[in-house]
Amino acid sequence: MHANLALLTDLYQLTMAYGYWKLHRADRGAAFHLFFRKPPFAGGYAVAAGLGPAIEFLENFHFEQSDVDYLATLTGGDDRPLFDDDFLHYLRELRLSCDVDAMPEGTVAFANEPLVRVTGPMLECQLLETALLNIINFQTLIATKAARITSVTGGDLVIEFGLRRAQGVDGGLSASRAAYIGGCDSTSNVLAGKRYGIPVKGTHAHSWVMSFDDELTAFEAYAQAMPNNCVFLVDTYDTLQGVRHAVEVGRALRERGHEMVGIRLDSGDLAYLSIEARKILDAGGFPDAAIVASNDLDERIIESLKRQGATISVWGVGTKLATAYDQPALGGVYKLGATREADGPWEPKLKLSEQTAKINIPGLLQVRRYRTANGLLGDMIYDQNHPIDPRGTIIDVKDTHRRKTVPDIEAGDDLLVPVLRGGEVVERFASGSDESLDTARSRAQQQLAELHPTICRLLNPHEYPVGMDIGLHERRDRMIREVKSTIGD
Amino acid sequence: MHANLALLTDLYQLTMAYGYWKLHRADRGAAFHLFFRKPPFAGGYAVAAGLGPAIEFLENFHFEQSDVDYLATLTGGDDRPLFDDDFLHYLRELRLSCDVDAMPEGTVAFANEPLVRVTGPMLECQLLETALLNIINFQTLIATKAARITSVTGGDLVIEFGLRRAQGVDGGLSASRAAYIGGCDSTSNVLAGKRYGIPVKGTHAHSWVMSFDDELTAFEAYAQAMPNNCVFLVDTYDTLQGVRHAVEVGRALRERGHEMVGIRLDSGDLAYLSIEARKILDAGGFPDAAIVASNDLDERIIESLKRQGATISVWGVGTKLATAYDQPALGGVYKLGATREADGPWEPKLKLSEQTAKINIPGLLQVRRYRTANGLLGDMIYDQNHPIDPRGTIIDVKDTHRRKTVPDIEAGDDLLVPVLRGGEVVERFASGSDESLDTARSRAQQQLAELHPTICRLLNPHEYPVGMDIGLHERRDRMIREVKSTIGD
Repeated sequence: MHANLALLTDLYQLTMAYGYWKLHRADRGAAFHLFFRKPPFAGGYAVAAGLGPAIEFLENFHFEQSDVDYLATLTGGDDRPLFDDDFLHYLRELRLSCDVDAMPEGTVAFANEPLVRVTGPMLECQLLETALLNIINFQTLIATKAARITSVTGGDLVIEFGLRRAQGVDGGLSASRAAYIGGCDSTSNVLAGKRYGIPVKGTHAHSWVMSFDDELTAFEAYAQAMPNNCVFLVDTYDTLQGVRHAVEVGRALRERGHEMVGIRLDSGDLAYLSIEARKILDAGGFPDAAIVASNDLDERIIESLKRQGATISVWGVGTKLATAYDQPALGGVYKLGATREADGPWEPKLKLSEQTAKINIPGLLQVRRYRTANGLLGDMIYDQNHPIDPRGTIIDVKDTHRRKTVPDIEAGDDLLVPVLRGGEVVERFASGSDESLDTARSRAQQQLAELHPTICRLLNPHEYPVGMDIGLHERRDRMIREVKSTIGD
Repeated sequence: MHANLALLTDLYQLTMAYGYWKLHRADRGAAFHLFFRKPPFAGGYAVAAGLGPAIEFLENFHFEQSDVDYLATLTGGDDRPLFDDDFLHYLRELRLSCDVDAMPEGTVAFANEPLVRVTGPMLECQLLETALLNIINFQTLIATKAARITSVTGGDLVIEFGLRRAQGVDGGLSASRAAYIGGCDSTSNVLAGKRYGIPVKGTHAHSWVMSFDDELTAFEAYAQAMPNNCVFLVDTYDTLQGVRHAVEVGRALRERGHEMVGIRLDSGDLAYLSIEARKILDAGGFPDAAIVASNDLDERIIESLKRQGATISVWGVGTKLATAYDQPALGGVYKLGATREADGPWEPKLKLSEQTAKINIPGLLQVRRYRTANGLLGDMIYDQNHPIDPRGTIIDVKDTHRRKTVPDIEAGDDLLVPVLRGGEVVERFASGSDESLDTARSRAQQQLAELHPTICRLLNPHEYPVGMDIGLHERRDRMIREVKSTIGD
């Protein structure tokens, strides 16, 4: 993570900040919520991730002299400076004082639920928007993709392999991190191993084989150099011949007291080749040798290979995971929910827009998850400043006819927990030593296991019940009608 | 850019490096080529980018003590260390001595052409693979996407807006950088502006409007705070009403000696709304006010909006550009082409594989671009250690019946230029002060203008002639037949 990313923002955050400051509105209170409107990959859920790096960003947030010097060079339509010196001085001195509440990493999250809530001076909330979205959107996307992939491998190991085609340096690093939270077992990315403590895996590439006169010699050489880490890549010339070479070298290795770990397939028909390779390995005396497969794998191809009886035991998943190939962005947004004057009462705020789906949920929101003895019942989004309506009814955001009633409104767990108070970090989670990535990974495993299998289905999943407290719904409904009547709609 | 990214690699590069070192093969010569097999987006070309950051990576390449300390903790299948202490010491002392040749950023590139060539000790070549792929793959992808987008805007300004949904921090920064090379005019990303000198743009968001009692008040407040940077976002409540409010505030602004820059549409039917907004602006006395549009735009939507007569003059393109949404990874690879003993002659190396499309071009490759008075003739990939065959014939890599003859084999321009010699940077391009991003951007503009329009077509483009020197083709053909006969195929 970079030390100081205050400028990692859209310019309009700074021009708005300037406006708020200039008009003496910088310190008015605001509450913003970061949420997505649809789970990614047409799936039924998301796995929240990225909070650790987001906390590091918040902790390091400040404008350096070189930042404000740069801002001083920006000009408007008339070639005069955009920003006053006084404002730049103000930025230079600015230290965060806001509160942040968030879902811990690994929490299973659904549409419209705030993953992060920022409350505090309007100006601060605004300056944090872009970086929070950048970090949380991407890592949540990848953790979710990893959860989907590991949901179909039936306990086989999954190695994340995506660095070479990831979107930039940090695209690769944060993909490795999030993939691990979402359920991958290891990564090929050494820097991610060093930085995040993720197990790393790797043996050799085609170039190793090609740099020797023939494949057998290449395998023998590798076994000689690194006898305790032998996974032979067998498809440089002819795959099944390669498997036979691996068996031959594996036997010699065994005589020297080492056991071949396995072979890797990286091209061709992985179902057919794995089945044939398994026969050769078994017949050759290597029933425990792993068959690692790679080559543009994703959850759908893995599911199909499994159905075809492929005997692959370790899945190397690269590009499709690290870039979330079939949906490379989570459409997370960060929307104003309420404002207040100084320490006055919070006023819920509505954004209408032409698209009904883009109408926000006004208020200072929290999410409560309800369970029964048989599993999860549903999630209720409610306004933290108002008691939950005793009717205990959850109303779907898009379809108000979809409703769910909870037996005891008090009995649920609130998902947003305090992370920053008055600008100071109060809970670090996976950003430091307070919580390791393994805790976040276990949380995801546990919460995914609680979901009904129909919700985890890859295709056309069942929709998990999540909606608004009926009291919140009624208030929102009233506000929409009021605004619509004002603008004559 | 991070200072030291030696560990930004796949573990197998290090285990192979260890093998080469252990077997005294670390210093054997190797030549690797970084290339892609198909242009992205089913298009006809790519715009090479990322070399600047790649040079920074090469220049800073070294293993720190903490890197080797981490590597010392890694173990194999028997729980014993993967790496000898002597090897770790060797890594700690390692400084690059290799040569690198590459296409300057902004060069228009085609399938199978090396964008980067690394020659030097096998071990070094291998250690550089993953990071080079990571950096070049992504930036080339985004520069190409930007070129496609700006190819349909007919000279309108294009602002890159993608940071909030980019793939990580550096995903956002390098997307802004590459998008600028590919043809975008500016970015919303302030840190990219500071770091790379890209013009930055931005005014206000919906939250600004919502934080005031009504839209008109919000616009007036913005105009008061920042009169020289007024682009009013008009769709918070009712878009056309918003345009009328903008006109009202624009008039007051004009009386104070400032001119409204324009309005922005961010939802709804952009064709209809832009046409109606234009009428209101023109009738209101603002024929020069810009209409900025955003909301999940890409080259196809822009093309369609243009066809529908949309009066948008500035395009804000975000997610679809910064993540290359419809193809979020360029499948660039880095393949061994030749090896040699010490200073002996280069031996071309072949990789066969089950998939014919994955057979490499053996040799130490260079690309020559031929021109006629009427434009580009074609590109020839040739082996730099062999004279180009006097027949002057270019043979397509996939379809050997597609051929092209050049009148004068000497008359072309070689596209790979020296970047590193003996591990020292000899040409910095856009990584420092030697070449600004603007030079790379102009190069792209110029080279794209040279292409026949049918090659730039979004859908089913004409295929630009690129292939092997017939001498190289014949040698490769021979090698394939020899290897196939050896493995009894």
